[in-house]
Amino acid sequence: MKYCFGIDVGGTTVKLGLFDTEGKVIEKWEIKTRSENGGVNVLPDIAEAVKGKMEEKGIAPADVAGAGIGVPGPVTNDGYVNKAVNLGWNERFNVEEKLSSMLGLPVKAGNDANVAALGEMWKGGGAGAENVVFVTLGTGVGGGIIIGGKIVTGSHGAGGEIGHIHVEDNESDSCGCGNHGCLEQYASATGVVRIANKLLKETEEETVLRSGEVSAKTVFDAVKAGDSFAIKVAEQFGKYLGTALANISAIVDPEVFVIGGGVSKAGEVLLDYIKKYYVLTAFHGCRETRFELAKLGNDAGIYGTARLILDK
Amino acid sequence: MKYCFGIDVGGTTVKLGLFDTEGKVIEKWEIKTRSENGGVNVLPDIAEAVKGKMEEKGIAPADVAGAGIGVPGPVTNDGYVNKAVNLGWNERFNVEEKLSSMLGLPVKAGNDANVAALGEMWKGGGAGAENVVFVTLGTGVGGGIIIGGKIVTGSHGAGGEIGHIHVEDNESDSCGCGNHGCLEQYASATGVVRIANKLLKETEEETVLRSGEVSAKTVFDAVKAGDSFAIKVAEQFGKYLGTALANISAIVDPEVFVIGGGVSKAGEVLLDYIKKYYVLTAFHGCRETRFELAKLGNDAGIYGTARLILDK
Repeated sequence: MKYCFGIDVGGTTVKLGLFDTEGKVIEKWEIKTRSENGGVNVLPDIAEAVKGKMEEKGIAPADVAGAGIGVPGPVTNDGYVNKAVNLGWNERFNVEEKLSSMLGLPVKAGNDANVAALGEMWKGGGAGAENVVFVTLGTGVGGGIIIGGKIVTGSHGAGGEIGHIHVEDNESDSCGCGNHGCLEQYASATGVVRIANKLLKETEEETVLRSGEVSAKTVFDAVKAGDSFAIKVAEQFGKYLGTALANISAIVDPEVFVIGGGVSKAGEVLLDYIKKYYVLTAFHGCRETRFELAKLGNDAGIYGTARLILDK
Repeated sequence: MKYCFGIDVGGTTVKLGLFDTEGKVIEKWEIKTRSENGGVNVLPDIAEAVKGKMEEKGIAPADVAGAGIGVPGPVTNDGYVNKAVNLGWNERFNVEEKLSSMLGLPVKAGNDANVAALGEMWKGGGAGAENVVFVTLGTGVGGGIIIGGKIVTGSHGAGGEIGHIHVEDNESDSCGCGNHGCLEQYASATGVVRIANKLLKETEEETVLRSGEVSAKTVFDAVKAGDSFAIKVAEQFGKYLGTALANISAIVDPEVFVIGGGVSKAGEVLLDYIKKYYVLTAFHGCRETRFELAKLGNDAGIYGTARLILDK
């Protein structure tokens, strides 16, 4: 065996990577996700792309260990996808078996956030550790729990649904999941904006955010510039997220938290606000747990899906 | 191989069990824990007890798969105990290697709450499941996280420190761990008493608890008798614990929660108050997670330590 493929399926594009069995990426490319018509073309398009690459490179099937695939939806340990609405998939089916029969290769599937976590554990911010919690702060808050080098999928595919940890009893707005007071409502990009807009209404304080655009980026840029209003927003963000991560430590006690997603582009300053509140509630045994920024960006998924195959 | 031993070391007694390799207990007995003098006698006493039992039963070492041992303190995956103050152990040493050299048998060690969780997964309230969260409500709140049939020890031995999940920002009293607002301060036997005494001071409401003894038992007895004050205590207890368990579901998503410890003797009524609040904050994918009462009582530890050996 010399090669494997990592495939990260998103709502608009499919990212693909050809890897050697040491985990070095040889080539990466993208194709469009055709989610129309119930997403019937998604897997055939992927199969064509993989086979095309093998032909182009003169790679025989016997030299390929397999293909890993990450999809935006819950995936069971035995490869069933329940639904992946962003791909147009509305039926429960075994994505591993289906893609495997198209490719003539072993296929292993995982949830997209979980495989990104596995990628960051393997070659990113968590490299060298086997117990890693990955948190992605984007439009929503997602994540993945890696214990002993393996994804914790959970009994209902809800392992690592970090964004839906309940952190606030007094919340009138609904989370996308239907509950009230989920971490995602405060620690995502939209959550940071919500906190900022709420505080803007409550106070008269001077801030660059009052006249300009309010986004996670402008908030943390203002924090870096010493804007005291923006710092209050960061404190609230840090309190919700830091406390939630302290609770994760009391449950699975990772060696390292890896923080990724768009909001993490703010850099080390973000970790400062998370850690400040983390240490206040973390159990003494895990107060020194490391925090790292994610390193693989949008490639975390192809690394993680490749790892699904190479770890077999 | 026909046999194995399970050994659960407590501060006052050591519980021992002789098991067949199917996990059936053949005999169980206890010896005293001699924790004086830095606990130097604890392991020799255990070795003598095990060897004595093998002699008595005519069991050859070749017929014994090994001995599992649970200790009240953090235990690393490779068998190191950092400290176990209740046993007088104040030094870091490898308990597996030490007991193994005394017994001439393979030894596997674990934290006492974690091995109890493993026992309940194997032969107790979680039988049939591989992803189990065990919560023990006693003087404190302990627990264990079992994923894929294995204990989640954590990178600092703090996996399953459920009692130290932060659940209350407004708490002036300290938890035993030094933090403020840990689950243990509300959901343990002493926590239930704290909630009741606080409410007794805050209201004038008639209740059997105002004149009589206040304990977790009398509170839940009063709940069963329809005492509306006691029901308010149970609601607070249920809210703290149910919300914390919902958060555990968003992280590791177990198939079943098993509730044990002294407080769980209240029975099914206890689960009713936990579940009432669990469903309010649980992520939709895991709202139907099962709740069971623990079944093995004080024997959970010997079952779990036997399992450490038989699962090798």
